[in-house]
Amino acid sequence: MILILKGGATDDQIDHVIERVEAMGLQAHLSRGTFRTIIGIIGDETQIVVESIRAIPAVAKVVPVLPPYKLASREAHPDASVVDVSGVKIGGGNVALIAGPCSVEEEDRMHRIAESVVSAGANIFRGGAFKPRTSPYAFQGLGEEGLRRLRDVGQAYGVPVVTEVTDPRLVELVAEYADMLQVGARNMQNFALLNEVGASKRPVLLKRGMSATVTDLLMCAEYILSKGNPNVVLCERGIKGFDPATRNVYDVAAVPLVHQLSHLPIIVDPSHATGKPDLIPPCAMAGLAAGADGVHVEVHDCPEVAKSDGPQALLPEQYDELASQMKSLAELLGKTVSPLPEKTA
Amino acid sequence: MILILKGGATDDQIDHVIERVEAMGLQAHLSRGTFRTIIGIIGDETQIVVESIRAIPAVAKVVPVLPPYKLASREAHPDASVVDVSGVKIGGGNVALIAGPCSVEEEDRMHRIAESVVSAGANIFRGGAFKPRTSPYAFQGLGEEGLRRLRDVGQAYGVPVVTEVTDPRLVELVAEYADMLQVGARNMQNFALLNEVGASKRPVLLKRGMSATVTDLLMCAEYILSKGNPNVVLCERGIKGFDPATRNVYDVAAVPLVHQLSHLPIIVDPSHATGKPDLIPPCAMAGLAAGADGVHVEVHDCPEVAKSDGPQALLPEQYDELASQMKSLAELLGKTVSPLPEKTA
Amino acid sequence: MILILKGGATDDQIDHVIERVEAMGLQAHLSRGTFRTIIGIIGDETQIVVESIRAIPAVAKVVPVLPPYKLASREAHPDASVVDVSGVKIGGGNVALIAGPCSVEEEDRMHRIAESVVSAGANIFRGGAFKPRTSPYAFQGLGEEGLRRLRDVGQAYGVPVVTEVTDPRLVELVAEYADMLQVGARNMQNFALLNEVGASKRPVLLKRGMSATVTDLLMCAEYILSKGNPNVVLCERGIKGFDPATRNVYDVAAVPLVHQLSHLPIIVDPSHATGKPDLIPPCAMAGLAAGADGVHVEVHDCPEVAKSDGPQALLPEQYDELASQMKSLAELLGKTVSPLPEKTA
Amino acid sequence: MILILKGGATDDQIDHVIERVEAMGLQAHLSRGTFRTIIGIIGDETQIVVESIRAIPAVAKVVPVLPPYKLASREAHPDASVVDVSGVKIGGGNVALIAGPCSVEEEDRMHRIAESVVSAGANIFRGGAFKPRTSPYAFQGLGEEGLRRLRDVGQAYGVPVVTEVTDPRLVELVAEYADMLQVGARNMQNFALLNEVGASKRPVLLKRGMSATVTDLLMCAEYILSKGNPNVVLCERGIKGFDPATRNVYDVAAVPLVHQLSHLPIIVDPSHATGKPDLIPPCAMAGLAAGADGVHVEVHDCPEVAKSDGPQALLPEQYDELASQMKSLAELLGKTVSPLPEKTA
Repeated sequence: MILILKGGATDDQIDHVIERVEAMGLQAHLSRGTFRTIIGIIGDETQIVVESIRAIPAVAKVVPVLPPYKLASREAHPDASVVDVSGVKIGGGNVALIAGPCSVEEEDRMHRIAESVVSAGANIFRGGAFKPRTSPYAFQGLGEEGLRRLRDVGQAYGVPVVTEVTDPRLVELVAEYADMLQVGARNMQNFALLNEVGASKRPVLLKRGMSATVTDLLMCAEYILSKGNPNVVLCERGIKGFDPATRNVYDVAAVPLVHQLSHLPIIVDPSHATGKPDLIPPCAMAGLAAGADGVHVEVHDCPEVAKSDGPQALLPEQYDELASQMKSLAELLGKTVSPLPEKTA
Repeated sequence: MILILKGGATDDQIDHVIERVEAMGLQAHLSRGTFRTIIGIIGDETQIVVESIRAIPAVAKVVPVLPPYKLASREAHPDASVVDVSGVKIGGGNVALIAGPCSVEEEDRMHRIAESVVSAGANIFRGGAFKPRTSPYAFQGLGEEGLRRLRDVGQAYGVPVVTEVTDPRLVELVAEYADMLQVGARNMQNFALLNEVGASKRPVLLKRGMSATVTDLLMCAEYILSKGNPNVVLCERGIKGFDPATRNVYDVAAVPLVHQLSHLPIIVDPSHATGKPDLIPPCAMAGLAAGADGVHVEVHDCPEVAKSDGPQALLPEQYDELASQMKSLAELLGKTVSPLPEKTA
Repeated sequence: MILILKGGATDDQIDHVIERVEAMGLQAHLSRGTFRTIIGIIGDETQIVVESIRAIPAVAKVVPVLPPYKLASREAHPDASVVDVSGVKIGGGNVALIAGPCSVEEEDRMHRIAESVVSAGANIFRGGAFKPRTSPYAFQGLGEEGLRRLRDVGQAYGVPVVTEVTDPRLVELVAEYADMLQVGARNMQNFALLNEVGASKRPVLLKRGMSATVTDLLMCAEYILSKGNPNVVLCERGIKGFDPATRNVYDVAAVPLVHQLSHLPIIVDPSHATGKPDLIPPCAMAGLAAGADGVHVEVHDCPEVAKSDGPQALLPEQYDELASQMKSLAELLGKTVSPLPEKTA
Repeated sequence: MILILKGGATDDQIDHVIERVEAMGLQAHLSRGTFRTIIGIIGDETQIVVESIRAIPAVAKVVPVLPPYKLASREAHPDASVVDVSGVKIGGGNVALIAGPCSVEEEDRMHRIAESVVSAGANIFRGGAFKPRTSPYAFQGLGEEGLRRLRDVGQAYGVPVVTEVTDPRLVELVAEYADMLQVGARNMQNFALLNEVGASKRPVLLKRGMSATVTDLLMCAEYILSKGNPNVVLCERGIKGFDPATRNVYDVAAVPLVHQLSHLPIIVDPSHATGKPDLIPPCAMAGLAAGADGVHVEVHDCPEVAKSDGPQALLPEQYDELASQMKSLAELLGKTVSPLPEKTA
């Protein structure tokens, strides 16, 4: 950590800063420049309360040298992590194709959609039973009945399932039914929820918040990792932007950036990122080309009757075509779309 | 609600849209323009699932005519609401001055800070016992012991207290100690938490999320109102921006905008909005001048030992000067800084 | 165009709106809803001064039905435009690979870089002679001497050249030397400059401004098209965002969005979008996968002595590897990297 | 300037960095931390080409210690600058009230508006003769005839005038008619234009670009100052944001931030910042309360016939009320609304 002092800092002020640093058991290394004095802190900077250092009156700026996350960092763990979701691998060259409707709906519809996406090549099936909705008057999901349907449909087609959990009190329940727990963008910094999924044994799909930096995202992964759950998959799903033409800004550069900073897998969700069906296939391809370890796409056989997010769903035949292109691209990139888990008769 | 159809929509497609609208028990009003066909929907549009309408293939754009919130809207409730926090009024010309440290800390320090801010004119005391921290390794607050200290200090100086609640499982506990429950920016869309504070009898201070539009904020207020708790005070505390010079962008125009759209009071928090002590006093004054119903400022007597957010705290003597200016400005604007509640011996 | 009136608009106010519409030679079509009155305007809405309509007191909201650009729109010109840059085609399945240093520098260096990128597959060579620099003290480019060097190097390797023009007074001079004129992001809305390049016969590479919506970008293309120059290629090069980890946010979804709204080709510039060499190759691939008609990459053989933007340049050997991957991807997508123009002996 | 080296930088790499620094005539000060090596550069860092340093492979991060602007900085010039616009002072406790229509329009209307705003207290009159419009089909201003009308109206009411210049070729012409030259937000980084207004003797009103940081804004002021024109007044007029409810985000914290970093005056423009008449008065007051040296407001007597930006104009009677409140607030803050220049009969 480096402290840049204010212009005109007095010797007394400088001594005070050094005392404070040494009181934390660290060494201070003074360097007087032409215009400013700099103090380098030598020792393990993750022990430092940055804010209290920044509050010292003579300190103009605090520059961390190391990232604030440890378990999530690439430095601490140079090899790419591979997360196993009930037999389907994500990361390290293994590509997940996650597909399904926004919400769990009628049973026959769930079967129809699952059959179509699995035969297209999807290897994880999705559907929401507890829905975080911006309106209190909107459909809030089928609850436990939705979890049951999702699990049954997954078993029928031999595909693991992922679903969102929105409440720390429900983590245990959702983990009984689902192979993977999704933490949604709006809950990325719901630390009570992160702590609970960190204590679960299920892999976690952690979506990036709409105003989260990549560092913020990795800090939230750190919460889960630090509670003992190493199976975290990140997801870029669009950040806030100024152009109303798309729902969010699809920050595809976050994919190689996460791969540079962290060992954790990262997938993309062009459905939520763009909110426009026409943009989903090219953006799905872009995500893969940028190195994503998976692609999450919403699929519905009749978007105009979907209980939520209909306008951003692909039709099964559109998904079929996209999945075929994604498989070709994965091959070109030297990657493998993970096969379905073998049936354990 | 107005549906703008795609160029080249066929008669069959138009008929299909009309059927769908009528199936919802609403009337469709067709208007063929020179270049596009428009369908106006007549009836109560809050009954419509916007997303399913938008997913109809011939529909290019859906334009809502009414806001998506009802209970929070100014139309439904033309007079400004006044929220009473254990005797201190907020809104309708009554100004709240909320001050105190970021976190609840040592007892003697809490007393010193409370004494100074109350004598400066603050009428609500703040302090965090459960802290949502971006790092799992940072100080997470004193928990129930912090609540107890906060309540005791508030009682000692005859001032109501506000503190943050971050977990739906803790709402009841926090409500036992605090006069007002704060929902923080990161939890603005934590709907499980909103439902619980909506079921509480304590007034709620709802902070705007960093990427929330004013409509998003009002929809979250609607969650609380719709659960039966009418005592919601909103708070502008900075939104995400691109200039690293300040922690957030202080969106002061949100104050008159909320007053235009809603009857709920709104206060400002220049401490979190700017993250820089030098900017807090001018931004506090700006918020009041824009019509805010209160100003929330963090105060600490030794920021460099604060357990959190030290760099953005004012010193007691700085707060004293600011409070005096705020009182003059409130007077100029024809408003009153609410007096402390009378002692109930 | 649709006008949504304010709640409680009186009959007199409604009549006034209708009069104003009819005074513009258009028809007004009234529709009284349950909560609001709507007026549809029938006729050519591009003739309307939107702002004056919006300023009528009874009008709450104006919703345009058509896009504000005409010549640039896909509706007006359903087939993809192909722009020819001195024999190199861009658009309609033809891919441009533009590469070269940020600034024109020493002659031997220019030759070395040009030789390497052309042999890697680049079909347009770039280099800046007039540099828009954020600091008045930074290197401002070699001026006309830079233009001369760039042209000479291009001719030596049989490759067209593109360079930036920053001043309306210089358009004619730059057009004498360059095959394509670049309008930079900071000048996207420099309308005096747009008018001049619109009057030129050279194709124009128009970069998206850092806070420009896709509609803003297309309106600037409209300026150029409306002055008689049909040869406009757009460029996504990153928009402003809140994460300091990358220089800008690479908005790859703008590529398919532009293709949906407009017939004009659009290329991507991952060098400026990310500002980080490690992110450039994956983001270049992402752009192509999203459907871009070309990729612009800065290349320098010794970034640490580059006169500008060194840190975001690829080394020649890195570009060679990337170009090879881009050619494979273009093939997979059914596209062709445009061959160099045949030598006109 | 501080260089943070990458983890695992070798001794050879470190030596190479030191050589490069010393080759620039500066000293390198090495500091080996527990996890990273740091190099402090001692000497005048404004001489350094930051980009070339950042491009050295072993360098992970470059942290400037000094701001990149010199002439504009508060350090170089501790006292607030006062800019004199033909007798009206701006800065250092002197408040400018700038008002007038967006575009110069009919002569009698110009007289009516000028008379009303001057009698309300405005001390600079505004109006656009060359309009930068997002559409090539929109009204582009009256050109020189507009300048003439603006000057004549200003003289009739004894008030200096400000108008926008959009083209470097027109600076001389506009300077003949106007007392102050405005550089608009879209041209903030039009360096050719900045150089020309820098060479003019007229004071310059430099508006902040929609995606410009405060540092970007000050660097553009530096362009003008470095060309010899010391009379620069900055203007906060809204930055790009994600909420479509307002036209821009009114970044009022930029006012005290500029005052901290620079000696130049800064005014606010709530008309362009919000785009909504109802929000203009509270935001004007907020700007003054934040310490602005002036307030710029558009006023029109019949917004629905205004040739541009009608919807964001106040009516004369609304401006009259606002001006009266602004005068009271200025007085409360210990400032003076500058009087009109004395008639030089």
